[in-house]
Amino acid sequence: MSPPPLPRIAILGAGNVATHLALSFGHEVVAQIWARDIVKARALAERVGTSATSSLDDIIDDADLYIISVSDDAIAQLAARLQGRRGLWTHTSGSIPASVLDGVGTERGVFYPLQTFSADREVDMPRVPIFLEASSPEAMDTLRRAAHLLTPRVYEADSERRRRLHIAAVFACNFTNYMWVAADRLLGDDGLDLSVLAPLIEATAAKAVAGNPEAGQTGPARRGDRGVIASHEAMLADRPELREIYTLISQSILNHYAK
Amino acid sequence: MSPPPLPRIAILGAGNVATHLALSFGHEVVAQIWARDIVKARALAERVGTSATSSLDDIIDDADLYIISVSDDAIAQLAARLQGRRGLWTHTSGSIPASVLDGVGTERGVFYPLQTFSADREVDMPRVPIFLEASSPEAMDTLRRAAHLLTPRVYEADSERRRRLHIAAVFACNFTNYMWVAADRLLGDDGLDLSVLAPLIEATAAKAVAGNPEAGQTGPARRGDRGVIASHEAMLADRPELREIYTLISQSILNHYAK
Repeated sequence: MSPPPLPRIAILGAGNVATHLALSFGHEVVAQIWARDIVKARALAERVGTSATSSLDDIIDDADLYIISVSDDAIAQLAARLQGRRGLWTHTSGSIPASVLDGVGTERGVFYPLQTFSADREVDMPRVPIFLEASSPEAMDTLRRAAHLLTPRVYEADSERRRRLHIAAVFACNFTNYMWVAADRLLGDDGLDLSVLAPLIEATAAKAVAGNPEAGQTGPARRGDRGVIASHEAMLADRPELREIYTLISQSILNHYAK
Repeated sequence: MSPPPLPRIAILGAGNVATHLALSFGHEVVAQIWARDIVKARALAERVGTSATSSLDDIIDDADLYIISVSDDAIAQLAARLQGRRGLWTHTSGSIPASVLDGVGTERGVFYPLQTFSADREVDMPRVPIFLEASSPEAMDTLRRAAHLLTPRVYEADSERRRRLHIAAVFACNFTNYMWVAADRLLGDDGLDLSVLAPLIEATAAKAVAGNPEAGQTGPARRGDRGVIASHEAMLADRPELREIYTLISQSILNHYAK
């Protein structure tokens, strides 16, 4: 039995996500790049080794899969201009429902890689989880086949599940980053910056993702050391917003570990 | 001019910090290991290639530096039993004042490596910052000389500054870890765990420590997307404690970026 033929994919977009996807799929899979700006479309198409267009009318009509990878705000606008096409149309957003693509193709879905992509940073694609939603089992098969070309970590997730994932990611990435913003400001008072904590941050993150963050929790609240907590709160008197965060999270840790 | 002779250091303790320090200093520097438990003292001394004792009376009296590396709670008890010694005595705690060692030696200080040490994890010592406090310029010279054997990142920090560092570390490590605990719980609702966010967490942490976490902030609150924030809060209705954290941090991010 020969392996199933590679899917032919058209990618709409030339931003960070589109670029990483297109380069990871490669020229055997990416049949076309569309972008509003023909210069960007051509630049990405040339890196991939495929063709480019900036005209919606020139988008190929026989792709196995269309991946719209533009900013969240632009998806609905683009969908309005793509009504009545054939084939399986998807977007890559974690926070937009698949229904934004109603009426675009004969099938629709979501192809959501859960990673932060930036132009200047390599992404280890086989470690990136991809979450899929599709309007039919056949469409899901196509999405699975495409996703498995990039990573073994392929999951199904409807809008509801993606929203829960997104909340988890807000805690795990956005809020942690804000804790680093806070630490950086506090260190600035001493002429230092976050880099002095880099080894500590890296060790903490490595422990958390490798194992059980609950077991790895440390610090005064974890120990139930109310004396240290009170002295820290007193020292944060001139930064009421950080003090409020300090108090709430410490209290939550005290409660969680029943200290 | 020949380089100054290596300091002779006695280390009191055989826990994680003591172990990493002793192994990093090596046998040319570590003149003796003391631990209450002679088995542990001997085990560490053997790895380092030095001598061991469990008797306070047998601690050498001619070391250039004594480093007490025991749990925070045990420092004062040990200090009480070490009154009236000669030489420069220090501890390795970020949260205990140097004055806990008053009366122990002729000089005292703090030798505080800002890193989380665990038995099973390698530490890249040259990246670890060490914060020093000493009772005289001569004592500070000795501490600097010792610290620079381990790392180029050597800073002075009195008790006040160490406490501010500690607060920053609570935000940067303890609170971030708790955000990962929260994310892990939320993912558990979907039969997932924090490992699906590992690439995202690592990319976020790498960006934050390499550059400017303030510029790297992303997420609904950073964008001022109150619709997404409200929908997340609604989905956290059954977890009031996490919802409260979500609301407070989101509000702080909105304020900070004036969204």
